Amino acid sequence: MVNYQPAPLDRVFGALADPTRRALLQRLEAEAALSVTELARPLPISLPAVMKHLDVLEGAGLIARRKQGRTVTCRLTAAPMEDAMAWLARYQRFWGESLDRLAQFVEDAPK
Amino acid sequence: MVNYQPAPLDRVFGALADPTRRALLQRLEAEAALSVTELARPLPISLPAVMKHLDVLEGAGLIARRKQGRTVTCRLTAAPMEDAMAWLARYQRFWGESLDRLAQFVEDAPK
Repeated sequence: MVNYQPAPLDRVFGALADPTRRALLQRLEAEAALSVTELARPLPISLPAVMKHLDVLEGAGLIARRKQGRTVTCRLTAAPMEDAMAWLARYQRFWGESLDRLAQFVEDAPK
Repeated sequence: MVNYQPAPLDRVFGALADPTRRALLQRLEAEAALSVTELARPLPISLPAVMKHLDVLEGAGLIARRKQGRTVTCRLTAAPMEDAMAWLARYQRFWGESLDRLAQFVEDAPK
């Protein structure tokens, strides 16, 4: 029933589970292409740490990197997010669910 | 710029990054409420392992548990998925992006 092979969705959701990686994607949403140095500049972490985060994002297919001489440029490749969003969309009918009904489920002690 | 406090989005995306946890949520999408035993039955992992996954799901606010005598019943609480989907929706304009354009970005060697 459950597929234990590393699935693309595991990698996408896993990549998005970190605030630094989400911040990197947000930078690349605002600007079409940025060098690793430009991406790292505002972050309070080391360049190797930034590069590890970029490895995770690339592993999930969320960014592409291109080498130009000594500069590595990154670009957003957001297509894998579509499957993640499709997965979440199945649960949309539950979002409007009454909080009262939920509180009742959690708190009601059986007689 | 980056918030290093554990953010709700970290927990939601982290919870969704595992195929067993996604399978548990899918069971609870199909049936309104299930006991831990019912949830564990089709899974090829131990009951304690299932309970750890349920802890992660509850920590992310994606399920609620209710104790009724010796039975613990679980129920989907999908509301936190809404923020996750809103986060992803910002990237929708990139999904239709031409693969040719991307291939060009990755492969073009500078002269």
